[in-house]
Amino acid sequence: MRRDGIALSLILSAALLAAAAGPAAAGDAVAAARAYRQANGAEILARYVELLEIPNVARDLDNVERNAEWIRQRLAARGVAAELWRIEGVPPIVYGRLEVPGAQRTVGIYVHYDGQPVDRDQWTFDPWTPVLTTAALEDGGVRRPLPRPGEPIDPEWRLYARSSGDDKAPIPAILAALDALRQAGIQPTSNLVFFFEGEEEAGSEHLGDYMRAHRRELAVDLWLICDGPVHPSRRPQLVFGVRGYTGFDLTVYGAGRYLHSGHYGNWAPNPAMMLARLLASMKDDRGDVTIAGFYDDSAPLSDAERAAMAALPDYDDALRRELGLAWTEGDGASLAERLRRPSLNVRGMASAAVGEAARNVIPTTATASIDVRLVRGDDPEVMLDRVEEHVRRQGYHVVRQDPDLETRLRYARIARIDRRPGYKAAGAPLDAPVVQPVIAAARRVAGDELVLMPTLGGSLPLYLFTELLAAPVVIVPIANHDDNQHAPDENLRLANLWYGIDLMAALFTME
Amino acid sequence: MRRDGIALSLILSAALLAAAAGPAAAGDAVAAARAYRQANGAEILARYVELLEIPNVARDLDNVERNAEWIRQRLAARGVAAELWRIEGVPPIVYGRLEVPGAQRTVGIYVHYDGQPVDRDQWTFDPWTPVLTTAALEDGGVRRPLPRPGEPIDPEWRLYARSSGDDKAPIPAILAALDALRQAGIQPTSNLVFFFEGEEEAGSEHLGDYMRAHRRELAVDLWLICDGPVHPSRRPQLVFGVRGYTGFDLTVYGAGRYLHSGHYGNWAPNPAMMLARLLASMKDDRGDVTIAGFYDDSAPLSDAERAAMAALPDYDDALRRELGLAWTEGDGASLAERLRRPSLNVRGMASAAVGEAARNVIPTTATASIDVRLVRGDDPEVMLDRVEEHVRRQGYHVVRQDPDLETRLRYARIARIDRRPGYKAAGAPLDAPVVQPVIAAARRVAGDELVLMPTLGGSLPLYLFTELLAAPVVIVPIANHDDNQHAPDENLRLANLWYGIDLMAALFTME
Repeated sequence: MRRDGIALSLILSAALLAAAAGPAAAGDAVAAARAYRQANGAEILARYVELLEIPNVARDLDNVERNAEWIRQRLAARGVAAELWRIEGVPPIVYGRLEVPGAQRTVGIYVHYDGQPVDRDQWTFDPWTPVLTTAALEDGGVRRPLPRPGEPIDPEWRLYARSSGDDKAPIPAILAALDALRQAGIQPTSNLVFFFEGEEEAGSEHLGDYMRAHRRELAVDLWLICDGPVHPSRRPQLVFGVRGYTGFDLTVYGAGRYLHSGHYGNWAPNPAMMLARLLASMKDDRGDVTIAGFYDDSAPLSDAERAAMAALPDYDDALRRELGLAWTEGDGASLAERLRRPSLNVRGMASAAVGEAARNVIPTTATASIDVRLVRGDDPEVMLDRVEEHVRRQGYHVVRQDPDLETRLRYARIARIDRRPGYKAAGAPLDAPVVQPVIAAARRVAGDELVLMPTLGGSLPLYLFTELLAAPVVIVPIANHDDNQHAPDENLRLANLWYGIDLMAALFTME
Repeated sequence: MRRDGIALSLILSAALLAAAAGPAAAGDAVAAARAYRQANGAEILARYVELLEIPNVARDLDNVERNAEWIRQRLAARGVAAELWRIEGVPPIVYGRLEVPGAQRTVGIYVHYDGQPVDRDQWTFDPWTPVLTTAALEDGGVRRPLPRPGEPIDPEWRLYARSSGDDKAPIPAILAALDALRQAGIQPTSNLVFFFEGEEEAGSEHLGDYMRAHRRELAVDLWLICDGPVHPSRRPQLVFGVRGYTGFDLTVYGAGRYLHSGHYGNWAPNPAMMLARLLASMKDDRGDVTIAGFYDDSAPLSDAERAAMAALPDYDDALRRELGLAWTEGDGASLAERLRRPSLNVRGMASAAVGEAARNVIPTTATASIDVRLVRGDDPEVMLDRVEEHVRRQGYHVVRQDPDLETRLRYARIARIDRRPGYKAAGAPLDAPVVQPVIAAARRVAGDELVLMPTLGGSLPLYLFTELLAAPVVIVPIANHDDNQHAPDENLRLANLWYGIDLMAALFTME
């Protein structure tokens, strides 16, 4: 088993073969799921292809509706009380509820069934005509027919289609897990609430409205957010939160019009250089943010997080090689460590023109677009206040719109700051009691291969779950990390689908 | 007479009325020029309109040829041995020679008769249908007919046409001065060599070739470069040089592909921030360049330059007000002082995107386009060597093209530097004996209003004159500073044309 490269293709398959430990029912559930999918792989794939054939861009409401109805029917067929919730002109929610007599806990399961828009010209196959290949295309995979019932299925096969990985994959996993449990006569141990969104890739604009309108139906003890990929090492992972997000555009000003760089250069202030100096003041050479108070509110690392990080696959060197990086910020700090801190990133910068379009001018303005990621404890407004205070301390007068002549003549340095709306980080502390059964369930499937990731580096508006619905969230990814999510040639590795089925069976029967 | 604003409209007119001092012949020459243009203003304008009616964009060879032939004929009609020099497919040179018996000196007079391309939509009038107005358009000037012979002419009138200021204006001034001297029976005191280029606005690509092919005909003691505007205070000026020019594009590198700023930010290096830090290291907060050795070779300020600068119109405050600047680099140093030093200017900067197009990524590269201006003593290659050495000292590996993966994996910081071709500053020291008669001649026209500017901030390839032809250069501007050169609605203020005629008469008869 190679772990030193990025093509650790066998790890997840190996994990699937690991003996499942734990109580009989759960162990039975995983075994039942495995047996079921081994016997019915061809049928599971064929059913998934049906779903993937329905286009699912959020603004394409007719097709979105077809997706929702397809899912509702399949849930209902498995004894789930399923319905569609609607807001006029908006993709519906597929809501389902499976009450289990005697269950002491209600678990919510979130999936989004919409997908990113596509640029068909850039796809090898049609995005909504699923194609099975013998491997990833970039590894020489070739198209092959869907397997006949009973035909052996290579877990390295890939299914190419929009949303095959992001984020329809949990749906066949959930359906197959329900079938497997029913066939084996095993009851879920929790009440299950299914909450499938159709507008995630369009910004989840109405998710909060749906939640506010259905707080009672959405009252659960814990949300499992089924989205995103497994660890880049290919090992299964649970992720205990996402970072919050905010950001701002920062513009500084030179003269009111373009000036000839020969006639005025190094006398008239150059906003590109001013911006460079201002940005340089915000981070040190190591890559740490030097804005006063920037790290003050962040929840400190718990022992559980420290232990989880120490146990993470040592993937950083491989990643550096893949990305062509001889050095990373933090002077050797691990990626996971860095993601557990708030960050400040220049996502774009512009002043006049470069290359062929460049002219001998002093630019009039220079702008940087910056995003700020937050961890538990950080407040987006407070963080931006600190940034503004820092800009002021560098001698800048801060404005909200382009300064008029009077303002320009009053202040030597003027910075316009346009704040973007933000939201807090969300998740569950790794040592919280409520998440321990989830960890145990996933271990039953993945054994020691399971990666516990304290937080995702990215941001999702999961604060809606933690704040509006007041329940902790754990992210439960299924898709392969190289699934080309949001990109052309999106695909799902079958080993990941099989893992998803086993995992759902384990989660539905967790202690 | 207001000198505190930028609308010092009367200064040049007042200067023209100042009593001319100096030896009889020269004094006579200026008086003769003044009398001639006062009597023949309408005819001078009508003849100039003829020249301005001929389109003169360098690549429009047929019309360029018509311009050249028009000028050659007018020179020949005044006893100048005039001819066209040709290189196939290139605008011709108008060359003329006026030998003066007993002259101890040969003076070269450079003008360019081509003009910048036009965007007709942006012009108020057709660029090649000259229009006379009662004032500048932005000051409420309105169109009026050309004056009838003998009709009084307001020196504030403006003549709108492409190249009316830049750079056909010296041509009617030269022709009228020759006419005035002839009519008054005054001989020039120097042999005169006229060298009129038709490709300046297209980059003077063949000027060096013409010079190399005609070194003998172009052997002079001093070149008068008739181009550019008078001082922004409207006072007449002589400029004793131009800055040299070089520049480079600087690109730094992050990962080999765009990375999600949430998943990798503040771990994967951000090239926009790297560029900001690198640029910030090149200048201090005062605006001075901190690159080692950057100022080492620059010719020190002479006493004559220091005196000239002290006598300059105090124009900086007015300029700051006009440009909306509460502060300028150098903490109060004058613009003239700053232009007498080499400069480093960020003319453009780019990394990924800002505004609506910005995405949550870590950019892959960041680029700054930088121009460097040089003063006497600075060598363009040596200056760029110093920049590169500075970049290396900041820990960067310097490359000439985009780095391959191997290079990326070897060096933590990689900077690509693309050098642009450069050239040295050119001019004459203000205290050089050869330029003293020029100063005296201009004083005879402008009196104490004459501004002696040690150097132009901008750059022109005058090194061709000083290096290929081995003669000093003095720039002798005529046009108003607000002539919209290179822009729509280019115009010449008539006071400046009258000044040009008087000045040419004085220069042709200088001691």
